Amino acid sequence: MPELRRDPIIGRWVIIASERGKRPYDFVKKKDETKGGYCPLCPGHENTTPPEVLVYGRPSHDPNGPEWQLRVVPNKFPALIIEGELDKRGEGIYDKMNGIGAHEVIIETPRHYETLSSMAVEQLVLVFRAYKDRLIDLARDSRFKYIIVFKNFGKAAGASLEHSHSQLIALPIVPQIIQEELNGCQRYFEYKERCVFCDIIRQERSQQTRLVDENRDFITICPFAPRSPFEMWVLPKRHQSRFISMDDAHLHQFAMLFSSTMKRLDRVLPNIPYNFMLHTAPLRDSHLEHYHWHIEIMPKVSTVAGFEWGTGFHINTVPPEEAATILKSS
Amino acid sequence: MPELRRDPIIGRWVIIASERGKRPYDFVKKKDETKGGYCPLCPGHENTTPPEVLVYGRPSHDPNGPEWQLRVVPNKFPALIIEGELDKRGEGIYDKMNGIGAHEVIIETPRHYETLSSMAVEQLVLVFRAYKDRLIDLARDSRFKYIIVFKNFGKAAGASLEHSHSQLIALPIVPQIIQEELNGCQRYFEYKERCVFCDIIRQERSQQTRLVDENRDFITICPFAPRSPFEMWVLPKRHQSRFISMDDAHLHQFAMLFSSTMKRLDRVLPNIPYNFMLHTAPLRDSHLEHYHWHIEIMPKVSTVAGFEWGTGFHINTVPPEEAATILKSS
Repeated sequence: MPELRRDPIIGRWVIIASERGKRPYDFVKKKDETKGGYCPLCPGHENTTPPEVLVYGRPSHDPNGPEWQLRVVPNKFPALIIEGELDKRGEGIYDKMNGIGAHEVIIETPRHYETLSSMAVEQLVLVFRAYKDRLIDLARDSRFKYIIVFKNFGKAAGASLEHSHSQLIALPIVPQIIQEELNGCQRYFEYKERCVFCDIIRQERSQQTRLVDENRDFITICPFAPRSPFEMWVLPKRHQSRFISMDDAHLHQFAMLFSSTMKRLDRVLPNIPYNFMLHTAPLRDSHLEHYHWHIEIMPKVSTVAGFEWGTGFHINTVPPEEAATILKSS
Repeated sequence: MPELRRDPIIGRWVIIASERGKRPYDFVKKKDETKGGYCPLCPGHENTTPPEVLVYGRPSHDPNGPEWQLRVVPNKFPALIIEGELDKRGEGIYDKMNGIGAHEVIIETPRHYETLSSMAVEQLVLVFRAYKDRLIDLARDSRFKYIIVFKNFGKAAGASLEHSHSQLIALPIVPQIIQEELNGCQRYFEYKERCVFCDIIRQERSQQTRLVDENRDFITICPFAPRSPFEMWVLPKRHQSRFISMDDAHLHQFAMLFSSTMKRLDRVLPNIPYNFMLHTAPLRDSHLEHYHWHIEIMPKVSTVAGFEWGTGFHINTVPPEEAATILKSS
């Protein structure tokens, strides 16, 4: 069983998901399934994934049959596993707990070569609806405190499969970065009685220098202090702390802006590997006045090296104002 | 001039070091100087680096001549620049300051193909002595609050030159990760009146399961919650908060254990890219009872992907007990 371990100094959690039987060098030579060959996520190969937990667009009653528009399946090689009790315990001065959680794969499209920048907006709506449906369903499990939804696109960004997919991991604790973000928002709110993200949106719309795109309900900006060249955030214009609070009209607006944002990125840096992460309020919080959900998109342009590991600083060679100018005009 | 920018929510700092005139795709296609060809760090090419700030082993009085055992030079493409005043200012809700700092390259050896695992212990002593000398010298500049010393080895770990070198960056603020580490140590000390690292060393020496190597004054362990497979920490056994407090006998013991540690890593994962980071107390602190300097060595085996970016969690497929067993017997 995987194990969650906490660093006793800095409080950082690590998932130890042992792959026993491997020899040291096997950890270095990653299997590369990103190009060509057999795809376990394509239609007709449904039996190579664990049984689906959600499907859209299947006309028949045949579970795991080949006709569908989107499927969600448990990860075949999960970082955390769903069965078992949470068991927190110590080992001398150290803390650990069972690696309880859920790890699912959202197969975003049946079409192998479709990407988030090339797919129809209606298909993107399905992707985000699937996030919402899974977030709502998994929140019923009281062992989970947070669900992170993310995407790795391209091998350099950590993807091991080429077929367009995103992932979610349900966690028994609120992760450190989200907690720090919540604390920062809380401090700002206590001081100003305003949401810091709402203030950011206000300033970006007035300054215009880091604004990439917007529509009725959403806005895309390059953040003021981006970790990566061409980093972008997509945020709802009106205050909303939880992704799942979006209604259908919102979902559609969101998909539209997200689509045009990804098309811009693809025109500026064709086929660039990227990660995106959904930041939303923890499961046990209802509506929060100080938190504002958003998606952070990080193109994989640079390497995390000694300086970043040692300081938490990032060095970015593209000012966000320059990135926004390029993205806006693309 | 580079700019330091602070994320208004989470407090993370970013260095915006613009490389103007590049087109977007230039950021992706990194120049690769790691293999073959002309080496600006080799003897005889001293005029291709900025003038040296420290040299060991030069018999003549010819500054920047070709005979030397180790050189330290300012980085030709610095992330921060040494000239100017610290100027903190706002931009609406955002904070920024001038990118004042020092960025130096420690050319660890005149021999192009020598590595930290293949070089003689006496040469390693020079490397660590150079760290100490530069830390002491740069600490005289009152604008600097912290100096991070680090090494990127191999292209995948961020090295852009093959010739064995490490780097240091002097910063006008204490970086977030170091501050969090200091805070964690402080909390532990307030509770226990003991240094958490001293307690870790005590537990690791008694448990033995994560102990890799030790000599009279130093110990190498795989930490309990490692971010990366085969991550190792090298620590002084006796409490010491600052790297610069080491005397010559200590330096020699440290170089010996560090050498054998790197040889172990190289035998288990030949030529694996890695980063290491020196963690030492901030410049303005004298001896700290709650902090303990050490070096963290992180082999570059996995990719930082969406899950890590979004949560700060790391997934590690090699339990440190397994890594230590393999490293110890290698």
